[in-house]
Amino acid sequence: MARILTGIQSSGLPHLGNLLGAIQPAIELSKNPQNESFLFIADLHSLTTLKNGSERELYVRSIASTWLAFGFDTDKNVFWRQSRVQEHAELSWYLSCFTPFPMLANATSFKDKSEKLADVNAGLFTYPVLMAADILLYNANIIPVGKDQKQHLEMAKDIASRFNNLAGEDILVLPEPLIDERMMTIPGVDGQKMSKSYNNYINIFLPEKELKNVLKKIVSDSTPLEEPKDPDSDITFKLYSLLASETETETMRQNYLNGGYGYGHAKQALFEIILEKYAEPRRLYNYYMENNDELENILKTGEEKARIIARETIAKVRRVLGYGE
Amino acid sequence: MARILTGIQSSGLPHLGNLLGAIQPAIELSKNPQNESFLFIADLHSLTTLKNGSERELYVRSIASTWLAFGFDTDKNVFWRQSRVQEHAELSWYLSCFTPFPMLANATSFKDKSEKLADVNAGLFTYPVLMAADILLYNANIIPVGKDQKQHLEMAKDIASRFNNLAGEDILVLPEPLIDERMMTIPGVDGQKMSKSYNNYINIFLPEKELKNVLKKIVSDSTPLEEPKDPDSDITFKLYSLLASETETETMRQNYLNGGYGYGHAKQALFEIILEKYAEPRRLYNYYMENNDELENILKTGEEKARIIARETIAKVRRVLGYGE
Repeated sequence: MARILTGIQSSGLPHLGNLLGAIQPAIELSKNPQNESFLFIADLHSLTTLKNGSERELYVRSIASTWLAFGFDTDKNVFWRQSRVQEHAELSWYLSCFTPFPMLANATSFKDKSEKLADVNAGLFTYPVLMAADILLYNANIIPVGKDQKQHLEMAKDIASRFNNLAGEDILVLPEPLIDERMMTIPGVDGQKMSKSYNNYINIFLPEKELKNVLKKIVSDSTPLEEPKDPDSDITFKLYSLLASETETETMRQNYLNGGYGYGHAKQALFEIILEKYAEPRRLYNYYMENNDELENILKTGEEKARIIARETIAKVRRVLGYGE
Repeated sequence: MARILTGIQSSGLPHLGNLLGAIQPAIELSKNPQNESFLFIADLHSLTTLKNGSERELYVRSIASTWLAFGFDTDKNVFWRQSRVQEHAELSWYLSCFTPFPMLANATSFKDKSEKLADVNAGLFTYPVLMAADILLYNANIIPVGKDQKQHLEMAKDIASRFNNLAGEDILVLPEPLIDERMMTIPGVDGQKMSKSYNNYINIFLPEKELKNVLKKIVSDSTPLEEPKDPDSDITFKLYSLLASETETETMRQNYLNGGYGYGHAKQALFEIILEKYAEPRRLYNYYMENNDELENILKTGEEKARIIARETIAKVRRVLGYGE
């Protein structure tokens, strides 16, 4: 039985890139009866880059609604907001005293972020310690991560070992990364990786008209309608192929190659397949966004489950450190 | 009405230097009916330098017993262990995202500590953020600090301003330092500043025989018994004068100047005045050290009072940041 833990970023609205690259694969993984999925919305982490409270509230609700809309089973698994379980911040302090300063100073992600961001705050620097706390609180053994997060996971293992070493017993479970080599890069409307930061994302929950307007922004070359087109270098085709069946994709490929088929036609097909494929998630998403009390109840139930486990770990850690239980 | 907040270090046993330099002046301050004293044992901070749990438990009990033994009024004031109020660590995370990384990197105390200590951990680096949380949680307006802590207090004000700026209202109270210019330096048995780190301290709660042995270690010059001695360059005389009345001090000064009075005599006089002056605190200290349940109850009552105030502040902060209340 594997306990799989995933933290979900909450500094923006969920988009097609998140769905295909993270949410749908995680939900697949959680359906395996051998697995127990711990899924939390990392809203404490989001404070490192997002200060606006109303935006955070909106994003958290929106992300929670998305996971529910895609069928994440909150009875079988555990689903919570990080900020509702105080033990995350508490364990993070303890672990920070077991984290060598140079380990954080040399972290690649901090170096990258300090170069890119105007607001280089201390939270950004200690981010990997909070991430270690998130993982170690729940005795998670499998952590699906992208390659860019692998170093953070190594740090979590290192910090846990240092603590266990002091304790003289294996209080904290050393997590292992599950690195998805297939990890798809989903292109945004401009062809770069779809990302909130590039503002090139497709929000599949938009009302139809707005969704259509976003799809219109997908960049294409200027090959005239009647001429043959190269499907493999085209963003619309790439996005379509990620959603469509093999037969549908093959049909569109032929249309591109034959000519007489414009990018407008392809975008219309993409629009239709989004509406068709995501009809039920779109309905459910809107339902949860409109029924906040119900969403809140689901999250609160998850938070109670999370807290029970988190408190068990904290009690053990406190005993070792002489803080009582 | 001033709300005075003081954090007490808990990485060692309380000694005469702490008593004269910090504990007794703080208790005097707390007796002013215009003041409300918030006094906490900074046992989360102690993890930056002390990892051993049993030592921490002993030190915390010992420090709490000392304050009670010296008459700190826990009904009028608030007295608690930092580690028992989760809001310290929680607020610390929020504030870390409002703390510019370079502010911490340039802190003098971190530079000093990184040069001296083998274990340069991340907790040592973010220490000033936790200290800011300690202060800001309780809307304290007066913080008695030594000169070495003044920079930390400036940081707390800076962090609070940044948060208030985002909030658009004065949620966090900007604290002011109370710098005691008279701050005495109490010499240890070797003449350096009395400190746990130099292992030159006098624990006034020791059983008589052990106390006597410690006093024997006080360094003196080799002037023979019969010759006159210089009181002003002698450590035993200095310590005696801090405890004795003016008349008693003057008598000992004359003994030194007259000759025929040895350092052994002076140490005996110091021993006697410690026993006499601290008879009641010694009795009470031992009482609390032996009656752990009673000590625990006093602390728990204080922790309930502290938590009520801490939670009010956290609720306001969370509302601003979009974390619910």
